[in-house]
Amino acid sequence: MGGSLVVLSGGLDSTVCLALAARDGESDGPAPLALSFDYGQRHRVELSSAAAVARHYGSEHLVVPLDARPWGGSALTDDSIDVPEPETSGGGADQEIPVTYVPARNLIFLAVAMGVAEARDLDAVYLGVNSLDYSGYPDCRPEFLTSFAETARLALKRGVEGRPVEVRAPLLDLGKADIVRLGVEVRAPLDLTWSCYRGGRRPCGSCDSCALRERGFADAGVPDPALV
Amino acid sequence: MGGSLVVLSGGLDSTVCLALAARDGESDGPAPLALSFDYGQRHRVELSSAAAVARHYGSEHLVVPLDARPWGGSALTDDSIDVPEPETSGGGADQEIPVTYVPARNLIFLAVAMGVAEARDLDAVYLGVNSLDYSGYPDCRPEFLTSFAETARLALKRGVEGRPVEVRAPLLDLGKADIVRLGVEVRAPLDLTWSCYRGGRRPCGSCDSCALRERGFADAGVPDPALV
Repeated sequence: MGGSLVVLSGGLDSTVCLALAARDGESDGPAPLALSFDYGQRHRVELSSAAAVARHYGSEHLVVPLDARPWGGSALTDDSIDVPEPETSGGGADQEIPVTYVPARNLIFLAVAMGVAEARDLDAVYLGVNSLDYSGYPDCRPEFLTSFAETARLALKRGVEGRPVEVRAPLLDLGKADIVRLGVEVRAPLDLTWSCYRGGRRPCGSCDSCALRERGFADAGVPDPALV
Repeated sequence: MGGSLVVLSGGLDSTVCLALAARDGESDGPAPLALSFDYGQRHRVELSSAAAVARHYGSEHLVVPLDARPWGGSALTDDSIDVPEPETSGGGADQEIPVTYVPARNLIFLAVAMGVAEARDLDAVYLGVNSLDYSGYPDCRPEFLTSFAETARLALKRGVEGRPVEVRAPLLDLGKADIVRLGVEVRAPLDLTWSCYRGGRRPCGSCDSCALRERGFADAGVPDPALV
């Protein structure tokens, strides 16, 4: 297949996703294009992690500024909403939508990814969503991804030409421990990743995302190399 | 119904669309929110037109910077591609995709519009596309809009709650002359609008968009107030 693009947050999941895209690519082809968004996230260290991961794979790293703060609506971008502790957040594996949900985030990320993929004539877009751990986010569900791929086919010139850009979510059915194991297997640079929802020099260890990561590494029986 | 949002380019179509959204809204409700994109378009005067039109309706005007130049792919954003004259462009009513096509433009605009609509709890998003004049753009087709609305329903919290954000394209089946007539009827400020694909103080009069606009006003038997 031809080139691909990976939506890269700099977290564990998207980094493993980039590792898989790199593995899937032609050995003599270019590295997957890495696409990150600067959406005014509080945890800006994410973007430096993404840059480091992209560098690790020799990927071109495109950072699209998309400031969501003027319209707000999420604890991840809006300073007036507290990032919750796990016990109060409704995150994790239950069905409530957490306050860390960013309205239309994956819809917007995938839409821009499709624009870039079409402009660069890339065959596939990879997104590191997983529906098990993030079942509370509607835009991480398989039915959303399937519907999006069809909408994108209709929107794009490549779709009209019968060469739709594929949407790939290789982590969709995996839990966090599976992703850690897979990341180790494909030698993804997990030491470079950042998962914490809060900014700071070190992960806070108490937000949803830190808790999920910690549990994932523990269940996989692997020490977290980012904490060494 | 509750509030609405209009994707406003500052051109004729989106201005008439805002006029319709304002008419559809509750008389004591807030004016529709106007959403524009600064996507590095060459014709930046569009954005001042959008601001003037929003002001005319007392609408809050949100301008989202979304610079498409780093990934390119369109004559509207890429300086290395010439904006064509109508006879060579493949634009207008035939089926070829014009070089003025911006990859995934309406997909991206609508995705961001959905994020804003959800954050502000608005019931509808208006888009001024029309499939007759722009049949060459895949993302102006009714099947794209229908598919997008379904994808957005799956992506959004409002969709999960059974209150999906509606996608409205009231100009979809109208030609340019119909839109001019409708604009006059609902007293849209057509004098404030900008349609030319090129930058400059006055419309160039020769690009696709100028030609389409000129023909629209001529067919409607209305003088173009922007040229007075």
